[in-house]
Amino acid sequence: MGNQSKGLIALLQFNPTVGDLAGNAQRLQEMVRLAHSHDASVCVSTELAICGYPPRDLLMQPSFIQIAQDMAKEIHVDIPVLVGTPTVPENQREQPGNGVLLIGNQAPAKVVARKQLLPTYDVFDEARYFDADDRPGIARTINGSFELGVTVCEDAWQVSGETPSEYNADPIEQLAEWGRQGVQLDATVNLSASPYHAEKIQTRLRVARTAAECLNHPFLLANQVGGNDDLLFDGRSLAAWPNGDVVIAPAWEEGILLVDVNDSTRSQWIPMKQEENSGLIQLSSKSVLEQDEETVLEALADAVVLGLRDYCRKSGIQRIVLGLSGGIDSAVAACVACAAVGPEKVLGLSMPSRFSSDHSKSDAKFTAESLGMEYASIPIDNLHHLLESQIETVLSNGLPVARENIQARLRAILVMSHANAQQRMAIATGNKSELAQGYCTLYGDMAGGYTPLGDVYKMEVYGLAHVFNNRARKIGKEPPVNESTLTKPPSAELAPDQRDDDTLPPYAVLDSILKYHIEEGYGADEIASKGHERETVVSVLRRLEANEHKRWQMAPAPRVSPRAFGQGWRHPLASRHDWRR
Amino acid sequence: MGNQSKGLIALLQFNPTVGDLAGNAQRLQEMVRLAHSHDASVCVSTELAICGYPPRDLLMQPSFIQIAQDMAKEIHVDIPVLVGTPTVPENQREQPGNGVLLIGNQAPAKVVARKQLLPTYDVFDEARYFDADDRPGIARTINGSFELGVTVCEDAWQVSGETPSEYNADPIEQLAEWGRQGVQLDATVNLSASPYHAEKIQTRLRVARTAAECLNHPFLLANQVGGNDDLLFDGRSLAAWPNGDVVIAPAWEEGILLVDVNDSTRSQWIPMKQEENSGLIQLSSKSVLEQDEETVLEALADAVVLGLRDYCRKSGIQRIVLGLSGGIDSAVAACVACAAVGPEKVLGLSMPSRFSSDHSKSDAKFTAESLGMEYASIPIDNLHHLLESQIETVLSNGLPVARENIQARLRAILVMSHANAQQRMAIATGNKSELAQGYCTLYGDMAGGYTPLGDVYKMEVYGLAHVFNNRARKIGKEPPVNESTLTKPPSAELAPDQRDDDTLPPYAVLDSILKYHIEEGYGADEIASKGHERETVVSVLRRLEANEHKRWQMAPAPRVSPRAFGQGWRHPLASRHDWRR
Repeated sequence: MGNQSKGLIALLQFNPTVGDLAGNAQRLQEMVRLAHSHDASVCVSTELAICGYPPRDLLMQPSFIQIAQDMAKEIHVDIPVLVGTPTVPENQREQPGNGVLLIGNQAPAKVVARKQLLPTYDVFDEARYFDADDRPGIARTINGSFELGVTVCEDAWQVSGETPSEYNADPIEQLAEWGRQGVQLDATVNLSASPYHAEKIQTRLRVARTAAECLNHPFLLANQVGGNDDLLFDGRSLAAWPNGDVVIAPAWEEGILLVDVNDSTRSQWIPMKQEENSGLIQLSSKSVLEQDEETVLEALADAVVLGLRDYCRKSGIQRIVLGLSGGIDSAVAACVACAAVGPEKVLGLSMPSRFSSDHSKSDAKFTAESLGMEYASIPIDNLHHLLESQIETVLSNGLPVARENIQARLRAILVMSHANAQQRMAIATGNKSELAQGYCTLYGDMAGGYTPLGDVYKMEVYGLAHVFNNRARKIGKEPPVNESTLTKPPSAELAPDQRDDDTLPPYAVLDSILKYHIEEGYGADEIASKGHERETVVSVLRRLEANEHKRWQMAPAPRVSPRAFGQGWRHPLASRHDWRR
Repeated sequence: MGNQSKGLIALLQFNPTVGDLAGNAQRLQEMVRLAHSHDASVCVSTELAICGYPPRDLLMQPSFIQIAQDMAKEIHVDIPVLVGTPTVPENQREQPGNGVLLIGNQAPAKVVARKQLLPTYDVFDEARYFDADDRPGIARTINGSFELGVTVCEDAWQVSGETPSEYNADPIEQLAEWGRQGVQLDATVNLSASPYHAEKIQTRLRVARTAAECLNHPFLLANQVGGNDDLLFDGRSLAAWPNGDVVIAPAWEEGILLVDVNDSTRSQWIPMKQEENSGLIQLSSKSVLEQDEETVLEALADAVVLGLRDYCRKSGIQRIVLGLSGGIDSAVAACVACAAVGPEKVLGLSMPSRFSSDHSKSDAKFTAESLGMEYASIPIDNLHHLLESQIETVLSNGLPVARENIQARLRAILVMSHANAQQRMAIATGNKSELAQGYCTLYGDMAGGYTPLGDVYKMEVYGLAHVFNNRARKIGKEPPVNESTLTKPPSAELAPDQRDDDTLPPYAVLDSILKYHIEEGYGADEIASKGHERETVVSVLRRLEANEHKRWQMAPAPRVSPRAFGQGWRHPLASRHDWRR
């Protein structure tokens, strides 16, 4: 090693379960042991590692804070470890801190930092739970004699202007100022729980390089990985040097990024599961991270798979059931489910009605067989006829949507019957575009404990189909989404010759309008000025607002986009809490 | 009047619609005109009156803040009015304020106060949206020459120690100190949006008396009334004098409390609807507000009726449909629906299965006919048989709950078909006790846009039945909940001879355990020490935790209890956001 006296810093890219304090402590201990066995001198966990992120109102219970901090203290380690934990307030008028505890340092455990910048926007609500500190932390470790600046997630973002909040402090600049005043730091570490969206890695990269340049020493960021509820974390822990060199850990897997602060080329990745080693990305100097469309889609596929897998694992769910319509959404949802829990644990139900095309039935079967999942076909036509005949007067005198919804709801009963009988979780197969338009049936196709594609736009669903097909080909299997599924015009098949574009704009147009509104926050005029027909834009935004109530009763969808649904503010129900589902 | 020069202060007990800025401005203008016509010199609105409370993430949009403040400024009034409005931050690094604008004062509109104490616990999340001010406001009005201390809701609660937060400031004490230093105030006003629960009026009374005593001048509180989403506000605006005299406005109706600060006996109540005049409560000196069980239940009945009525009115919903099982919950839910929107706009569906008793069918019909609502009976037995036969193997090899749930879900299809065909909102009829135990079917009896009894414990549902029966008797009508419904043992009737107490403890026991846990935050040991069997307590708490996911997919329930569901913190999904549904 370049500088034997300092040794290696281990960034623990950790996948915690929210609220499972004992399990998280145990896992952290294992990670520290593994790091130690690879000659790490110091370990750095992720933000709030002991309780997992986001713990939400668990943090409102003082006993939870106390127990979390105590368990963090009691993790058995032989080398110094910086553990993210909520910290008990020092006096009665204070809130807890989003803190960092230094343990294993041949001295009693000590809180060395508490987060200064508390994000409170979009999915974040930290001002609800924590008091902010007014200065960054410093940790001196016996082992390796490191002097480390210690920051927590958002603390490092102000310096590059990448946060939507305007904070009154800049912890990185404060550390840099201390450096100019003679405080010698070997590196600054950052304990993060930074959620994933498609462009996030580029932003995080800018943040890390800006911080390292400002600090004039290496900046090391340990990021949480995995799904917790509807938030996904991509990992991709990283280290950046003042000259622009960067090392990025793999996404979507637990492991340890071992960093030699004196030599960026000597970094190593130690995966927690040997088979999962994707290898490091090394960027020298100012070179950029190239991400073509395929790379982005591959990451999106990994994201939704890990989201569902973690949701099941962390909630004790073993098996899955879903409806297979023969359409693209349920085919891709089936791919996700099989990748998440294994095809032998997934049951697909084809439930044709009189409006289902032959293609739909055979396509559904094809997907199920290619994936190797369980499959059954249960026609709903008799039920549908019987039910219609019982309320024929109501239906013929009422709005046609009632008749259409009956089919989706009968299917939901069948899916839920299998879920209840066989202890499976039903998943809903809708995508973000149709859900945003209310083009879906409440208590029908929206029924399910989780909606893996609920934050994936329709055109991206096609992209995912190609990813899963390619992955199948690579291991010599039949691509599960066949040509017919990929090319037929999307249809809900709830009425004769129905096509989605009878009601909605073509999906490429719809997605573009929705993205401008949802991701960029643009209103109708701004979107029209980007080249869309104003009338179309208004109809899309109206449908989005009118159907907001539906999304409230949905299963959680993992968030893979930077912003929550819907910005319209006329509806009396308008609310922030989209991110919970 | 005792002191002609000062005149009367009008507290506007206002029922705003969240987000409807133009409608709220219009209504405030009408209220001010009415107050003026009754010789008011000054008007005081409720907290955030211009946008309604709680506006939630609407407040994250800068344009919303700007437009709200502008519309508050432009309300056309001829006398000074203190209007609650979000206020535009004064510099880029600030959040908006939860402010008070003085308009109509023969001078440009002026922000005279911004809330100092921002509640951020339970249903409140104000630190997310606002920056706190560091001092209370003072308003000088030309008309009447009033000098008023100005506070916003929570600001007044610290002095009596009635908030769960420990704030570093006490605005009432600050105003009192200014008084001791020679600042002469005629009164201190408080713009409130203080949600209802059964004991809240007693707390608010203590707060007001403590404030008046501390201030040594009258304390006047204008409180929001009505339902917004899942929050209910009871109104009951009040004025308290240093000697303990108090005047309390009626609950559950919009109107104006006219206060002569020099003479508590001259207060008047001007209802916005003439027929709604319930009259004032006057308490002299230290006399207490007596509330017997009947009064509390009457208020609860008014609460759930207004909650549903406002939900419908503010969401543009005209008509309601619900399932009528012949049981107590759906009978009382029908009473609530008929009172909320009128019996001619409510449809009750009896949907007997082979497990439904004759009593159930006749009791359902009795309730519908007594209330004068529409009624239809649609047997589900054929559908149930056909559906079972199609998946008989799955059902006979699976958990029995699957078979039970099918009936509830078939009923939901029928209810939703009527909702969709006839543009009705389905309401779910479950109560808080059974929902807290998961004794209900997801996408079955839980289906609906609103759950009027979702925050009402089972034993309170019986209490409400008596209230609605008494109300019917008083106007010479048949009591809608008959003896059979009131006295038969509760049963879901989803299996032969099923009774709720096969699975759950008797409801009196269950309710007591749930209240200790939910309202008081007690754990199993504490509850057992109150005299409940530990085994029963543990089984109740376990069911509560295990079924938490169900509540997430529920329709909103108005909150009529002080605390949110569930305090357990082991489940990975544990979350704060119960209050949204």
